[in-house]
Amino acid sequence: MRYGIIGTGAIGGYYGAKLAHAGQEVHFLLHSDYEYVKQNGLQVDSCDGSFHLDDVNAYGQTKDMPACDVVLVGLKSVNNDKLQALLPPLLHDKAASKREQSDARIDSAEREQARPKVKTLVVLIQNGIGVEEDVQRMFPEVQLAAGLAFICSAKTKPGVVSHQCYGSINLANYSCRDEALMQAVVDEFREAGIETGFVEYQEARWKKAVWNMPFNGMTVALHTQTDLLLKNAATRQLIREQMMEVVGAAQHLGVKNLDEAFVDKMIDMTDSMTPYSPSMRLDYDFHRPMEIYYLYTRPLEIAREAGYRMAKLEMLEAELRFLETQHKQS
Amino acid sequence: MRYGIIGTGAIGGYYGAKLAHAGQEVHFLLHSDYEYVKQNGLQVDSCDGSFHLDDVNAYGQTKDMPACDVVLVGLKSVNNDKLQALLPPLLHDKAASKREQSDARIDSAEREQARPKVKTLVVLIQNGIGVEEDVQRMFPEVQLAAGLAFICSAKTKPGVVSHQCYGSINLANYSCRDEALMQAVVDEFREAGIETGFVEYQEARWKKAVWNMPFNGMTVALHTQTDLLLKNAATRQLIREQMMEVVGAAQHLGVKNLDEAFVDKMIDMTDSMTPYSPSMRLDYDFHRPMEIYYLYTRPLEIAREAGYRMAKLEMLEAELRFLETQHKQS
Repeated sequence: MRYGIIGTGAIGGYYGAKLAHAGQEVHFLLHSDYEYVKQNGLQVDSCDGSFHLDDVNAYGQTKDMPACDVVLVGLKSVNNDKLQALLPPLLHDKAASKREQSDARIDSAEREQARPKVKTLVVLIQNGIGVEEDVQRMFPEVQLAAGLAFICSAKTKPGVVSHQCYGSINLANYSCRDEALMQAVVDEFREAGIETGFVEYQEARWKKAVWNMPFNGMTVALHTQTDLLLKNAATRQLIREQMMEVVGAAQHLGVKNLDEAFVDKMIDMTDSMTPYSPSMRLDYDFHRPMEIYYLYTRPLEIAREAGYRMAKLEMLEAELRFLETQHKQS
Repeated sequence: MRYGIIGTGAIGGYYGAKLAHAGQEVHFLLHSDYEYVKQNGLQVDSCDGSFHLDDVNAYGQTKDMPACDVVLVGLKSVNNDKLQALLPPLLHDKAASKREQSDARIDSAEREQARPKVKTLVVLIQNGIGVEEDVQRMFPEVQLAAGLAFICSAKTKPGVVSHQCYGSINLANYSCRDEALMQAVVDEFREAGIETGFVEYQEARWKKAVWNMPFNGMTVALHTQTDLLLKNAATRQLIREQMMEVVGAAQHLGVKNLDEAFVDKMIDMTDSMTPYSPSMRLDYDFHRPMEIYYLYTRPLEIAREAGYRMAKLEMLEAELRFLETQHKQS
């Protein structure tokens, strides 16, 4: 299959490079380091074994890229409005459109029914709740899946992805009609040495939020790291209560397999992790926009509309909005 | 009447100096600037007219001070455990004790009934909820009142109190059996040019908490000032919700005359205030202990025990506990 990578950073760069290294055809959209990667290739410094890609299909804009079977989106969700312009060249919809045009007999209702179903699978490897819903609204026919990455990686300099630990990515079907395609992606990921599997969409997104909502924001609000938040009795309790708010919201929304035991597991897991600055803390420190909308605003809104309040996470969102404004002014 | 001042700082220093300036007999307990004040007197730089006290009854320890009719306590509540040792010399209990001893006929039950009732009125001009309850436990017989000061003042250097604005202090009876004494204090305060009056104890303490709980902690947590918190839409809403949590707790506890209209009033009042750093922010900035216990822990506990949770203020308490620990280590 042919893969396209939108956002060749810590996440898209890593998974794309792993696939290319395993022999898959991968096309990378690059931004600031396009020229560098085109000339020097892509380096992955990895705890699982480093490697270098000499010849990289590098692009500076998607209109130069070919239609792909699978597109991995590794953009920060704050840039998702750009997908409206970035995605179309990579979508396999021309064939479908032609087929539709050749069928002169169908009336308009049938035409609606027979609208081109885009064959390309777009996998959003992004944080938060609501990204698939919004991208689907932009591209009603595209097949979407969520990619839930569990990885510590960073783009440390032009053309270099540093992969510190973990690295699995689970796939959750959002609107993919082609089960064989989903399976093919999982198979090819595995062949490339990427740990993966299928998970249920709602459950997976909300489980990820259990960790993400407390730790991303709290490390920014208190300018600290995961280990110190758990070492202090007051914030350890607070993190736990915030996690329970996410569990409460998810249960209220009918999400299955999510209860206090999962919170215990997340706390234990974080206790055993190397002290860690989540992506939002890095975004804040480097004065990049924070993913407040999909990590906080949207899930808080979804829960509130269903009659559930996550009071402490509402407060955290407000603190982040405040800090964001102060940052912009400084 | 004879007044004693424990804690001659921004608050105790101001009100004590006003009384002395009006001709009352006032005895001041000083700490770091005892020698300075003893030699140079006390200066009040005030928006209502500055003045200097040349001869100040200054003391370095309370055991040298005379028994007083009224003691104003302007200590930070974090030092309230020191009252156990500081207060006794200032209390009018020796006469009462002697009277009891001379009455040989009373049995032990009657003796209990006839236990010395300390005549001295101790006025706690302190922040938070629960200070009177705890001081009363230390001194079961002492007569207590709360002093609710609405003032912007600071001790800017040895022997100098700077009074920027406001200056009223309301009295709330906690356990004073002598109404004439309470009235005499109010009369003498007024004679000294201090705006004052009587307020209901629970109502006054909780009303003060409506402003204090959000603003003291939030200016520390987000390292900012009152005006910026209200200028940002997200934190303006958060402050409002935190105020409503205090109102909710107070209503749950049966406190009267406290509703959303009071929250509106506090927001309006703060909008029209000069940008302000509350005492907790100053304590934090100068690496002094913060009054977390009486401003947060205690009222949160009282409300929780009565079945009411102030979720966002619980979170704020946890953040303050975290910041306090980080500060101690830095």
